[in-house]
Amino acid sequence: MADTAAVATHKVVIIGAGFGGLFAARALRKAPVSVTVIDRTNHHLFQPLLYQVATGILSEGDIAPPIRDVLRRQRNTEVRIGNVTDINLGERSVSLETLGQTSVVNYDSLIVAAGATSSYFGHDEFNRFAPGMKSIDDALELRGRIFGAFEMAERETDPAKRREWLTFVVVGGGPTGVEMAGQIAELSKRSLHGNFRHIDPASARVLLIDAGDALIPYFGNRLSGKALAGLRKLGVEVLLNTSVTGIDGRGVDTQSQHDGGMRVEARTKVWAAGVSASPLGRMIAEQSGAETDHAGRVLVRPDLTLPGHPEVFVVGDQISLDKLPGVAEVAMQTGTHAAHTITRRIHHPGSVAHPFKYKNLGDMATISRFQAVASIGPIRVAGFVGWLLWLFVHLAFLTGFKNRVATVFNWFIAFIGRGRPQRTITEQQIFARRALESRGD
Amino acid sequence: MADTAAVATHKVVIIGAGFGGLFAARALRKAPVSVTVIDRTNHHLFQPLLYQVATGILSEGDIAPPIRDVLRRQRNTEVRIGNVTDINLGERSVSLETLGQTSVVNYDSLIVAAGATSSYFGHDEFNRFAPGMKSIDDALELRGRIFGAFEMAERETDPAKRREWLTFVVVGGGPTGVEMAGQIAELSKRSLHGNFRHIDPASARVLLIDAGDALIPYFGNRLSGKALAGLRKLGVEVLLNTSVTGIDGRGVDTQSQHDGGMRVEARTKVWAAGVSASPLGRMIAEQSGAETDHAGRVLVRPDLTLPGHPEVFVVGDQISLDKLPGVAEVAMQTGTHAAHTITRRIHHPGSVAHPFKYKNLGDMATISRFQAVASIGPIRVAGFVGWLLWLFVHLAFLTGFKNRVATVFNWFIAFIGRGRPQRTITEQQIFARRALESRGD
Repeated sequence: MADTAAVATHKVVIIGAGFGGLFAARALRKAPVSVTVIDRTNHHLFQPLLYQVATGILSEGDIAPPIRDVLRRQRNTEVRIGNVTDINLGERSVSLETLGQTSVVNYDSLIVAAGATSSYFGHDEFNRFAPGMKSIDDALELRGRIFGAFEMAERETDPAKRREWLTFVVVGGGPTGVEMAGQIAELSKRSLHGNFRHIDPASARVLLIDAGDALIPYFGNRLSGKALAGLRKLGVEVLLNTSVTGIDGRGVDTQSQHDGGMRVEARTKVWAAGVSASPLGRMIAEQSGAETDHAGRVLVRPDLTLPGHPEVFVVGDQISLDKLPGVAEVAMQTGTHAAHTITRRIHHPGSVAHPFKYKNLGDMATISRFQAVASIGPIRVAGFVGWLLWLFVHLAFLTGFKNRVATVFNWFIAFIGRGRPQRTITEQQIFARRALESRGD
Repeated sequence: MADTAAVATHKVVIIGAGFGGLFAARALRKAPVSVTVIDRTNHHLFQPLLYQVATGILSEGDIAPPIRDVLRRQRNTEVRIGNVTDINLGERSVSLETLGQTSVVNYDSLIVAAGATSSYFGHDEFNRFAPGMKSIDDALELRGRIFGAFEMAERETDPAKRREWLTFVVVGGGPTGVEMAGQIAELSKRSLHGNFRHIDPASARVLLIDAGDALIPYFGNRLSGKALAGLRKLGVEVLLNTSVTGIDGRGVDTQSQHDGGMRVEARTKVWAAGVSASPLGRMIAEQSGAETDHAGRVLVRPDLTLPGHPEVFVVGDQISLDKLPGVAEVAMQTGTHAAHTITRRIHHPGSVAHPFKYKNLGDMATISRFQAVASIGPIRVAGFVGWLLWLFVHLAFLTGFKNRVATVFNWFIAFIGRGRPQRTITEQQIFARRALESRGD
């Protein structure tokens, strides 16, 4: 199949339409190739703003534009929705399953950009009590749980149980954990003001737990300290050097390096502690003899190809290379690099592949409205200037003009006013929570 | 309980936070009463725009603001989320269930504003193949099915099956059916342009089926004809005098008064044919000896009270009185009337209750962008003027300033541009559809 296909147009298959896959597809828009983008859902996802969907600031449509619509003008590209069930490196084929039906797509070049999922470090049973933050479904589930917890507290008469409903634990002190903890504190103190009659939502406790000794450590000491101070000023209780040893429906068990074990009674938990790469990485590594690290990331060659398979590229959260962090920027740049290598090979057969070089454009995280920390090249800023920078960069990279305008509008409502325009909980979510809570009791 | 409560503040319980319940609560904001609003969900719902959530124009947050937030400044009012399981007219109490826990609320005055649900006229088995349009969950489910059908058609190679996926049947020619059919036609012809590689979404068939001999008949002959002509111009096939005798996963069986039986193969069906009032109406009618009509609506007294129970009001879609239509305007006005009667009785004990008089401010329905029909007093307008009127009236009644601005923005995107800003399908919805389709096959 691959041989006959090579006679016709060069076929590129891209698995995943996150930042890596989408940037690869865009970089191929003028290349003499036919591109097939495969994703499990109909939408790209602007993951850095997922926490705002979970906390009622943005709607799912604002950060999840349909992949087809984003790529509609790119005539050499088609989009297929389905779960990739197999990659066969020998046959150069990808099998996918859509609503029970299986089909096979052949490739000349393959870009594996399937991303990562939440990792519970061997404790998958934590998942149902502490959802991760990787998909729109995760965010909507957490939205239902967070706003639902205030509802439950409002009707609870037992003070101890009420406190359980008003306690929120975020596990993991990376950017997602920091942003979630900050936003839950903000909505309890500001957005829900006046909404309840039997509880004071501002009395909610928000805990942020991390096993390390600093928040967002790779931002450097100064910004890490600013983030810690910012969250504490908001009322967030930050527990560092503290591991989570157990999670159940009613709370979290922790083990501190200094203070020993502790139990925190909390009905609502968010897992932002770790990720593991898509199992597709291990699948192709096993076939090719390549190595993977503890998180399932593939040890790729410097040009991002799979060892022994120059036609297979691995990008984004799925690679282990030069200790690159699992951030959107790395995914964008590795996706683009893979696409450029493919194009160069077609125009200049036999050319040597360039090694990938990461240009760190910066890292940033919001603490609360008007407060962010940002690290851009040699610049380290915190506070309002950091926040303006955060605003600018996120808008610049948000996909699609209309999503940018809608997002600015929702931010205006949420940051300048006190509202949370997107607080709707569906009945599906209420039922999901009911099933969960009956198990948790 | 009721006697001791009467000594303290007069307690008003309102069941339902739709137009009837919300307008009743607002009209009581300065009354010397304590108000409890009970609803199954955390949000009010602007039902006339539900079809725009189903077709990807608006997000659920745009039309479903949290009830607590809408009523937050009204200090005499509290909101409780739960399912009403019992009303006891003798004890003057309402029982509600929230996530498995039961509680009881006592009242001095009760306003029953629980609305209506889709009615399948004895064919409840139709529901899973043809969801109704009464809740946010319904709208999101239909969004998933409508956009998902184009996805399935894109990957289907059998032309007959592809046609099934590209055929949409809307049952019921009232405002909701007319608006849904028009919007599905518009999105297939305009919004999805360029999104697919194997199908032309504009080739989708949209059928609107009604058993009567006219669309939106109570708008009068002229507007009814305009709506029919407008939809046909959009390419919608309108089948009048045609009953639906069967619905399954793959299609619809119809019976025409003129042409006999016909089968339409269509994977996606929308039910907009009929409603029945909340069963709470029958519950209180049985206790009081009041009558209900075929749709479960209570035959109330002219002052909207339950016969024999002057302390119990029934409003909105739940009443049968003077052949009032089941529209938002009737719910708003009856809710307000009930609240005014309660206030007047407190200030002037022994005063005679005024009969309710409906002021018909008008009926309207959109056909497509820039096209609507509106009937306001003696005025009957169609086309662009009707559409401007529709725009104005819907914005005026949409709850909350921020929802108005967000909605205008989304309309701008959808009507002036070609986009559908809210097309996200969650995985929950994909799984729901997968389960459905495997049954339908």
